Amino acid sequence: MIVSALLTSVGINLGLCILFFTLYSILRKQPGNVNVYAPRLVAEGKFQHNSHFHLERLLPSPGWVRRAWMPSEEELLSSSGLDAVVLMRIFVFSLRVFSFAGIVGIFILLPVNYVGNQLDFSDLPNKSLDIFSISNVNNGSKRLWIHFCSAYVFTGVVCYLLYYEYKYISMKRLAYFYSSKPQPHQFTILVRGIPRSAGNSFSGIVESFFMEYHPATYLSHLVVRRTNKVQGLIKDAKLLYNRLIHMKSKNSTQQKFMRDGFLGLFGRKVDPVDHYEKKLEDLEENVRIEQLGLSVSGEEVPAAFVSFKSRYGAAIAFHIQQSTNPTKWVTEPAPEPNDVYWHFFSTSFIKRWISKLVVIVACILLTILFLIPVVFVQGLTHLDQLETFMPFLKGILTIAFVSQVITGYLPSLILQLFLKIVSPIMKIFSSMQGYISHSQIEISACKKVLWFTIWNIFFANVLSGSALYQINIFLEPKNIPGKLAIAVPSQASFFIAYVVTSGWTSLSSELFRVIPLIWDFIRRHCSGSYADEFEVPSIPYHREIPRILFFGLLGITYFLLAPLILPFLLVYYCLGYIIYRNQLLNVYAPKFETGGKFWPIVHNSTIFSLILMQAIAIGIFGLKKLPLASSLTIPLLVLTLLFNEYCRKRFLPVFIAYSAESLIKKDKEDKNDPSMDEFLDKLVTAYRDPAMMPIQYSTNSDGHTSPLLTPAEV
Amino acid sequence: MIVSALLTSVGINLGLCILFFTLYSILRKQPGNVNVYAPRLVAEGKFQHNSHFHLERLLPSPGWVRRAWMPSEEELLSSSGLDAVVLMRIFVFSLRVFSFAGIVGIFILLPVNYVGNQLDFSDLPNKSLDIFSISNVNNGSKRLWIHFCSAYVFTGVVCYLLYYEYKYISMKRLAYFYSSKPQPHQFTILVRGIPRSAGNSFSGIVESFFMEYHPATYLSHLVVRRTNKVQGLIKDAKLLYNRLIHMKSKNSTQQKFMRDGFLGLFGRKVDPVDHYEKKLEDLEENVRIEQLGLSVSGEEVPAAFVSFKSRYGAAIAFHIQQSTNPTKWVTEPAPEPNDVYWHFFSTSFIKRWISKLVVIVACILLTILFLIPVVFVQGLTHLDQLETFMPFLKGILTIAFVSQVITGYLPSLILQLFLKIVSPIMKIFSSMQGYISHSQIEISACKKVLWFTIWNIFFANVLSGSALYQINIFLEPKNIPGKLAIAVPSQASFFIAYVVTSGWTSLSSELFRVIPLIWDFIRRHCSGSYADEFEVPSIPYHREIPRILFFGLLGITYFLLAPLILPFLLVYYCLGYIIYRNQLLNVYAPKFETGGKFWPIVHNSTIFSLILMQAIAIGIFGLKKLPLASSLTIPLLVLTLLFNEYCRKRFLPVFIAYSAESLIKKDKEDKNDPSMDEFLDKLVTAYRDPAMMPIQYSTNSDGHTSPLLTPAEV
Repeated sequence: MIVSALLTSVGINLGLCILFFTLYSILRKQPGNVNVYAPRLVAEGKFQHNSHFHLERLLPSPGWVRRAWMPSEEELLSSSGLDAVVLMRIFVFSLRVFSFAGIVGIFILLPVNYVGNQLDFSDLPNKSLDIFSISNVNNGSKRLWIHFCSAYVFTGVVCYLLYYEYKYISMKRLAYFYSSKPQPHQFTILVRGIPRSAGNSFSGIVESFFMEYHPATYLSHLVVRRTNKVQGLIKDAKLLYNRLIHMKSKNSTQQKFMRDGFLGLFGRKVDPVDHYEKKLEDLEENVRIEQLGLSVSGEEVPAAFVSFKSRYGAAIAFHIQQSTNPTKWVTEPAPEPNDVYWHFFSTSFIKRWISKLVVIVACILLTILFLIPVVFVQGLTHLDQLETFMPFLKGILTIAFVSQVITGYLPSLILQLFLKIVSPIMKIFSSMQGYISHSQIEISACKKVLWFTIWNIFFANVLSGSALYQINIFLEPKNIPGKLAIAVPSQASFFIAYVVTSGWTSLSSELFRVIPLIWDFIRRHCSGSYADEFEVPSIPYHREIPRILFFGLLGITYFLLAPLILPFLLVYYCLGYIIYRNQLLNVYAPKFETGGKFWPIVHNSTIFSLILMQAIAIGIFGLKKLPLASSLTIPLLVLTLLFNEYCRKRFLPVFIAYSAESLIKKDKEDKNDPSMDEFLDKLVTAYRDPAMMPIQYSTNSDGHTSPLLTPAEV
Repeated sequence: MIVSALLTSVGINLGLCILFFTLYSILRKQPGNVNVYAPRLVAEGKFQHNSHFHLERLLPSPGWVRRAWMPSEEELLSSSGLDAVVLMRIFVFSLRVFSFAGIVGIFILLPVNYVGNQLDFSDLPNKSLDIFSISNVNNGSKRLWIHFCSAYVFTGVVCYLLYYEYKYISMKRLAYFYSSKPQPHQFTILVRGIPRSAGNSFSGIVESFFMEYHPATYLSHLVVRRTNKVQGLIKDAKLLYNRLIHMKSKNSTQQKFMRDGFLGLFGRKVDPVDHYEKKLEDLEENVRIEQLGLSVSGEEVPAAFVSFKSRYGAAIAFHIQQSTNPTKWVTEPAPEPNDVYWHFFSTSFIKRWISKLVVIVACILLTILFLIPVVFVQGLTHLDQLETFMPFLKGILTIAFVSQVITGYLPSLILQLFLKIVSPIMKIFSSMQGYISHSQIEISACKKVLWFTIWNIFFANVLSGSALYQINIFLEPKNIPGKLAIAVPSQASFFIAYVVTSGWTSLSSELFRVIPLIWDFIRRHCSGSYADEFEVPSIPYHREIPRILFFGLLGITYFLLAPLILPFLLVYYCLGYIIYRNQLLNVYAPKFETGGKFWPIVHNSTIFSLILMQAIAIGIFGLKKLPLASSLTIPLLVLTLLFNEYCRKRFLPVFIAYSAESLIKKDKEDKNDPSMDEFLDKLVTAYRDPAMMPIQYSTNSDGHTSPLLTPAEV
């Protein structure tokens, strides 16, 4: 890529960003868009509706930036939880890393690269970007030792920042735990693999087991039941209820009759409101009958939520293998009650193990299958091939504009669309693995999407060969540095453009919320949908975190090779910091709280980026005829791995479980709390399946419609 | 190797074995050798001294075989512990595996190999052994499918047996635990990384921590102190005491005087007994003063043995991370009191981690350095090279006998001697890793010796190239099967000879106990050593188990390639079964009890052998132009790995810690036991450093000499 092309691309994207930001600052002030741009504030009742028209509403203003910047980390923590803070810490950490890298890269490495003359160019505007990359340094030049020293210093700084951040977030996690109110999931474990015993129900078996082995701390239990049928009925009832509400709101303006027969076309005329109300009552009656049947003789799953009188009691039952057979009475900490994923409650030890294996195979298959669109996209850039396959297109393809669109925009559009599909697919895979909470599924999907992105964007682009060839490189570990050293620098300009186009654009579309905006527009103006029925979205960590981390990987990998990427990354992270803060405060509401469990993913990804950078450095120094530097980089790689190992031992346990010290401290605090008795009473029913909750939509009994009870409210 | 050479080797070794067995059955009946051949019986007082001479004493008899065969597994368990049973189960398991392999190999694979004509031979006696190996099967022959099926069936049978054995031994382990009396180590944990706090002793910190967080179950603690100086003094006192006893026993026959000055040559004449008694008293006084000093102001190590009132209480403290900082208050189960390794009590988390890394590097270095003797030995087999380096040897080397000895026996002798050094070195390495018990050190050393043996005997011989070349093969995993398929079959005859020479000979020398026999002879007849001072040896698991497992690896690997190895292995395992039983009953006394923790090593080693066999099969089928069979073997490899993964989940936890169920059951049983109070009283002092025990050798106080108190007797 030549410099002018990069500048053009930067110009266009900068223009687009400014346009989006301007539009955003206008649109967000329109009362009609409040459900798109501030659903959280609406739900919390913090939004003042101001329907009066005034001119200011049509002028762009940067006030939202200030409002997003203002709140302190403590305020963010209290409003959006620790996971949101962790998300913002990724930006803070990346800004620190790339500020340092940017200074070193732009003021030291870039000039060194520029004064080399390994590559041959004539005049600046047509010069390739490669003049700023390590490829331009002369072979065997002593100047490469500057790169060598930068690699050491940069690794040192990143490791220090990683250590600092890990420590900071583990402290935050502990502080969050200490300051938390008693919560059901702290007192509860999930037991799976309850052994069958003739003549006894699972409930009886669980009761007698825990009364026998945990008599002092055992409080209660709830055996999980298969409730798919009731879940379906309740869903129908809810839909019907929403429809009814919608009808009633319209009722005042117009009165309509319908027939009660087939498709509403035959039968006698009835008032539709009465008709649906009758139907809803019937449905509710059905639900009640089903629930009654379930609670008496429903199909029990060999899994149960077991609650204890103290956090420490639950921790003991979770940490110590309960049965002599490690595949029976398998315990794990319970998720928050509203975080439980009730739909796919696979329980048997073997079944979960097998489904895990199946998911691994499926992920590998998906990764391989994803090469098909990649190959197809690569085909699009060669229009002549397309013409020979589909001669009828010849006429259209000769039009300059069409061919530009097809070669220039279509490939990346198709790729981005396919990438968009990946994160939901990975989430489905994770949910099939037998996780029992939405948060665990998100964490697992986050890892999967991250590795998929690294593999299919970074490696597939860098190696750009057939799938088999790409796997081959990892079957010959000795050759990895050499092969990467040839392939990676040549893709530098592609990834600089990627940061500008994909990175900046994804940020502005995140802010602008294009799809929800269009969706909301359609709902309000075209369909007869129900305006009141809107849900506050939660931030899809499994989609956002891998994207942010992938740019970090690009920055760390290209720090040595092509430091020109760094300023663009800094812009990305600065914008991202403001935009995600704004979205967390206005748009997304937290649905669950993992207590910062996403951080280890960030840490591992950064370590992987460092290792990749060092492996490429080993290869580059070898290629550049400086074998001593190449060998001397190996200790750096070993030291980085040792540092990672140390962090695993020092910090990772904090993110897995709380220590006896903290649990007992919390328990002791609670002892003097008079509200604990009430809490323990509530705890007994906290983990009731929402499908087993009494529902009451219809107005026949007490005259007013009560909303669906969610477990969080119990 | 040709058939006749193999027969000669078998003949010679068979003769040697019979000679050793005959000598053994005569020598063991001589009363003078009782300390060599039945030290355990002597120590237990079960041996009837019968000094009367009768002719039967000079005749070989097979009675010992019957006596070794007779005891049931339960009797062995009660006399030698579970570890001895596990050792014998290796033989039982191997006999089962190789009986099946032998039947398939000799009656199906061997004839198939023999009727092939890929290799060209003229008459049988000069025929190479390769005629019985897979190399003789024609390329692309359909008969190779028989080998393919054998690989599947054999893997299935071995996996079934592995599963059965793992289950059997984990049941035995649980039964052993249920039937055990209360033992100190079940109630105790070791805490390391006690945080320093100004103004408080470690003892006070431990006390307050456990009183705070485990008030219901905490019993007592003992902080570890540095006692190297006292340990030295006690050792001196013990030596002096033994010398004194020896002198007194001689005193009755002869009276000698010595001078009390320099080297006993100057100064005034004294009775040596009085002189040494005086010296011993002084030493004991010194020890007492030192001990007093230590217990008041001795250097405390930030580690302590903490005892609890119940097994479950100890397990809770061990399983749950105690401190919010995972590198502080690190807990692990305590070893048996007499199993504690007091000498190298490294305690800091970081120190232990670094020493572990250092040990790993040292092991790798040792493995590489070991190639030096291997290369030297390979040089010996080329005498002409030796002559050019050392021309003065020319005259000697031309003598046929000398050259035969040098080329034939010396190389393997040197190798065996070097191998003998490896197991003690590995033990030293393991003890440097910061393990706190002899049993953990033995287990760790066992693993190290096993991998060292597999690498340096199997791979170094098979690949027989430079060290660098050998590592290279593992940097290109794709090529491993192909390279092994070429290299491994060509070494078949070498390993058949290895089983016969090294395997059979090691067994007979184990039975004959050459070195202890010579040592005992020297002690009794030449030196003025003290006959009463003999220790019952314990079986060096870290030396024996790797050797036995290595023959299993050879058998499994060569089952497909050269089934001729199997009958010789069967003989090895049959002899081994009898001989090790005999030695366990008569010679070795158990020093510690790991409760069968050696079995997972056996399991992993067998799985590794299977994987190796399958990888070679993949390569062989490829070489033999049967690519379909080659590809169809890959699922077998994957299935074997999955089987291993399942076993890890199902059985390994049983070998790591006991479950809540079993611990609480045992605790409940004890509640009604009236002797528990007494046991708990004793528990408080069970983990006192032996260097802090009062010693009393001299006769001045109570008139009789009391032996050294060992912690086991407290």
